[in-house]
Amino acid sequence: MAHIAVNAQLPGIVGLLHFRPETAAPLNLLAEILLRGESTLTRGEREIIASYVSHKNECHFCHTSHGAAAAHHYGGDLTLIDEIKAGLPNTDLSPKMRALLDIAAQVQRGGLHVTKEHIDKARQQGATDRELHDTVLIAAAFCMYNRYVDGLATWAPRDNAAYNDMGRMLAFDGYTQATPK
Amino acid sequence: MAHIAVNAQLPGIVGLLHFRPETAAPLNLLAEILLRGESTLTRGEREIIASYVSHKNECHFCHTSHGAAAAHHYGGDLTLIDEIKAGLPNTDLSPKMRALLDIAAQVQRGGLHVTKEHIDKARQQGATDRELHDTVLIAAAFCMYNRYVDGLATWAPRDNAAYNDMGRMLAFDGYTQATPK
Repeated sequence: MAHIAVNAQLPGIVGLLHFRPETAAPLNLLAEILLRGESTLTRGEREIIASYVSHKNECHFCHTSHGAAAAHHYGGDLTLIDEIKAGLPNTDLSPKMRALLDIAAQVQRGGLHVTKEHIDKARQQGATDRELHDTVLIAAAFCMYNRYVDGLATWAPRDNAAYNDMGRMLAFDGYTQATPK
Repeated sequence: MAHIAVNAQLPGIVGLLHFRPETAAPLNLLAEILLRGESTLTRGEREIIASYVSHKNECHFCHTSHGAAAAHHYGGDLTLIDEIKAGLPNTDLSPKMRALLDIAAQVQRGGLHVTKEHIDKARQQGATDRELHDTVLIAAAFCMYNRYVDGLATWAPRDNAAYNDMGRMLAFDGYTQATPK
């Protein structure tokens, strides 16, 4: 049971967004811009970063829902969720994307863990300032969303399959449409 | 030097907000609602939570700027910044506020560290669902802002005195006025 009286029908962050619509608006807008707005990173790549960081923060709801969103950007196979858990050993990612994931992993530990070496490595693979910025902010933002969801002890379905519809909705309808009126 | 090409005149998050105005808008709006919007926690109490979490994340810029904002809500004495560093041993805070700071400290470690015991203790001191919600989200949000600021290696003035004007501005003019056009 959640630590506060949210609608028990609504899992994870969804119940919290309905509990406090004022904060839901900027939280959803930030996710929309970072994960679905104009970028030279694909929407699938950005959802992978979100899900990867959420797994490192042990946030089952965010990891699985954004993993499902990533899966829908790549054709719909939800086994991508478990592949993200494993560190994506069998996924065809660019060297640039691998270097950005390394930066995201450092951000998850704490901002001061990102070194010039991590940044240089990503630049050598073609990462731009804007891609570096957005990777750091996506990783940082999920350190917020994850703590919000688990710090208030919201419930989450266990099985990957339960996130299929949510993942499709996040991938193709987006985040701002989910802001409570 | 920052990891990306931000305006070197602008310290901490300020350069980042100017680098990417699209994300600056929801980031500033979230801070405005949480730290200055309608609440049964005072603005000073909420800035203390923000500064306290930022210190635990070793983010000098956010700790000092929000500590200075808190100081201005309490009359302007910047020694409050060092008092926050020390865990506020000599500050007259309510037992409810102490319990909320304990919850914020758990959120900083990770969302799953907040237990029913932490929540019950705050409720016994009068904390409401909304106060618990906002405390968790403020602490979570600063785990984002802190990682954003340090993950991109922005520079920050060292001395408390250098944050006096910024603290006054944040306290009395607020956050959304700082969003680049």
